[in-house]
Amino acid sequence: MSDFNFKIEKKLPNNLGRAGTYSTPHGDIPTPAFVTVGTKATIKSLSPEQVKKLGADVVLANTYHLYLQPGHKIVQGAGGLHSFMNWNGPIMTDSGGFQVFSLGAAFGSNVSKIASDTDEVCTDTEGGHCKLATIDEEGVTFKSHIDGSSHRFTPESSMQIQEALGADIIFAFDECTSPQASEAYQREAMDRTHRWAQRSLDEFHTLQEIRNKKNLPQQALFGIVQGGRHKNLREESARIIKEMRITSNNSSRAESGKVDTSGREFDGFGIGGSFNKEDMYSVVGWVNKILPEDKPRHLLGIGEPADIFGGVENGTDLFDCVAPTRVARNGQLHTKDGKINITNAKFSKDFSPIESDCECYTCKHYTRAYISHLFRAKEMFASTLASIHNLHFMVQLTKDIRSSIIENTFDTFKEEFLRKYIK
Amino acid sequence: MSDFNFKIEKKLPNNLGRAGTYSTPHGDIPTPAFVTVGTKATIKSLSPEQVKKLGADVVLANTYHLYLQPGHKIVQGAGGLHSFMNWNGPIMTDSGGFQVFSLGAAFGSNVSKIASDTDEVCTDTEGGHCKLATIDEEGVTFKSHIDGSSHRFTPESSMQIQEALGADIIFAFDECTSPQASEAYQREAMDRTHRWAQRSLDEFHTLQEIRNKKNLPQQALFGIVQGGRHKNLREESARIIKEMRITSNNSSRAESGKVDTSGREFDGFGIGGSFNKEDMYSVVGWVNKILPEDKPRHLLGIGEPADIFGGVENGTDLFDCVAPTRVARNGQLHTKDGKINITNAKFSKDFSPIESDCECYTCKHYTRAYISHLFRAKEMFASTLASIHNLHFMVQLTKDIRSSIIENTFDTFKEEFLRKYIK
Repeated sequence: MSDFNFKIEKKLPNNLGRAGTYSTPHGDIPTPAFVTVGTKATIKSLSPEQVKKLGADVVLANTYHLYLQPGHKIVQGAGGLHSFMNWNGPIMTDSGGFQVFSLGAAFGSNVSKIASDTDEVCTDTEGGHCKLATIDEEGVTFKSHIDGSSHRFTPESSMQIQEALGADIIFAFDECTSPQASEAYQREAMDRTHRWAQRSLDEFHTLQEIRNKKNLPQQALFGIVQGGRHKNLREESARIIKEMRITSNNSSRAESGKVDTSGREFDGFGIGGSFNKEDMYSVVGWVNKILPEDKPRHLLGIGEPADIFGGVENGTDLFDCVAPTRVARNGQLHTKDGKINITNAKFSKDFSPIESDCECYTCKHYTRAYISHLFRAKEMFASTLASIHNLHFMVQLTKDIRSSIIENTFDTFKEEFLRKYIK
Repeated sequence: MSDFNFKIEKKLPNNLGRAGTYSTPHGDIPTPAFVTVGTKATIKSLSPEQVKKLGADVVLANTYHLYLQPGHKIVQGAGGLHSFMNWNGPIMTDSGGFQVFSLGAAFGSNVSKIASDTDEVCTDTEGGHCKLATIDEEGVTFKSHIDGSSHRFTPESSMQIQEALGADIIFAFDECTSPQASEAYQREAMDRTHRWAQRSLDEFHTLQEIRNKKNLPQQALFGIVQGGRHKNLREESARIIKEMRITSNNSSRAESGKVDTSGREFDGFGIGGSFNKEDMYSVVGWVNKILPEDKPRHLLGIGEPADIFGGVENGTDLFDCVAPTRVARNGQLHTKDGKINITNAKFSKDFSPIESDCECYTCKHYTRAYISHLFRAKEMFASTLASIHNLHFMVQLTKDIRSSIIENTFDTFKEEFLRKYIK
């Protein structure tokens, strides 16, 4: 798979942190990297040019959302996600698993994005899993959060949808569990996730051979490690996903008799929920100690500034999170001294930028007074300016962490940043 | 007033149309020009760079809105509108009169933007004017549409507010009447508008002398012609506003004894409502035949594509209208074959641009299918892409009209455009 290449440039001496570059058919991703989220094939309120200019190197779109609206066949008809959404850099899609369980199954109920075992909507309380998503060995049946219609994802259909969407990096289909789930249920779900991972890997390679014949750019498949907050499960999952290979009778290359293991295993790894915040760094460390060093690792759906430091020093290369744009749309802006709410009265006459030393478009051209005015006036450009700043903040922070690894100043940088940010 | 200069480059032989250039301290406006509306110091859903790139040369912001929110003193504190909203090109502000009568006085009632004489909210039905705005000789008292608080505009305060906002081109304070108002009321309102115009002109010059001492860029003041749909009133109003000069005891220059009439009259003219659509071109023609040829004329709050042709051949140089962006946000897009609604099912699989020969950013990079998807998904970027296209359509149409005047092909261009557009 020469279209993808992960090169480690520098490792931290006292922990698992590393700086590298992940090359994809649509460009390089210097790592650690903060991946901007474009759920429905758009980074909310921003043009792709604005996303590029704020420093983002890679975008993650959501398979569940795009499958329901506009439908993966329409995205494919447009020539794939890159051309559909006018983003020529690297793109990832997730497997759909997380949204199936949080948005599809539990939408409108008392179940939060991390599904809980609320009695009113879930009967499988022992397992901590909401019954609105019906899981069987083959896959999961769920209801659309848009119109309540019934749909079904299997590992194979997740691969087919993600192949049609055409992102550079795609994820194996997994089951997301609640942090409240029992260890017994975590094991059951993890074992199933492993069987689904194998089917994802096999289907993926069949699809890649077809793409190859069509001269379409190759995709990379990341396997997902599950296992909740349990060390034994996480370590077992990391080992199994790490060692997983394409089923031989599924591979024409295997049939040729040549021993060529490249591309017959996962190209990278995702670390999925569920864990409580306080368990996160432990979980990430357990997993990354086992995963092969020469492949990229993505901590799914994380994080806040402190999480990036914790994730990096525990061996994570990629992060994605909707928080920077979601809180931006509510007027919450990141600063190196912590978050501020720009709609606060004191900012209405404040003619300084959000941060005087910030290099983003928003800070270079607009005052807190103007942004505050736009929010009060309910103007859409408020979200644009706030999202640019918050995304730049996270993307630049992760780039600064990368530089600190290369320059051997990670510990000092982390300490100084967090001392100011978390006051 | 050497900071402003209007140069006519070409006149149409068979009507009042002309192509020219209006120079301002913040750049040139080739005319005829379509002015983009940035009501609250932002062109809804667009960055100033996007506005510039779509071809817009000039922006109009609304005095009423900015007075209420964030307040003109805050805009002034930020260094004026140009720096507040990050638009370095020419800016206009209207007088506040139109919004006082339509939004302030009548907000939330049955009274539309063009106030009608609905019994429930208006007692002065004979005059066709809504009583929620209390007019006296000195000015008008009105209620904020935001919080119902009471406010008062006078010609002097309108000038003071507009001076603080710091646009290049500002308008005299006028009274907007309903097209349904009687001729008697139209005369009464017109006579008052003339007295307010004189007070606006006098106050404006006092303020400009102060600006001059502060080394702030000079502003231009446009007088507004009223008179409803009545030829006698419109012609009388055009003559009076055309001939109006600063009151001599208000001018230090006049006291110096020098005969210097430059800058002591209006720098340009606005043609205000009210008239029904079918009367518009007649009204504009009556007025522009009388107004001095060497000064720019702005048809306020108009128009649709056909209106631009009609306005131009009746001697109009400047147009502004919120319609292109307002309908864009509802998914209605201009094409040379008329408007389309992009949310229509047939566009969901249409991988062509809105218009294949359109040079706008939206048409260069996105398909109808993508824009249709964004509208269905209620994504903010839908409004951005649609607004860029519609504004570009109107701005470019007006530029093409300008070229047709210079190349002597106006009649053919008009006929061909309207035959396709109005099918």
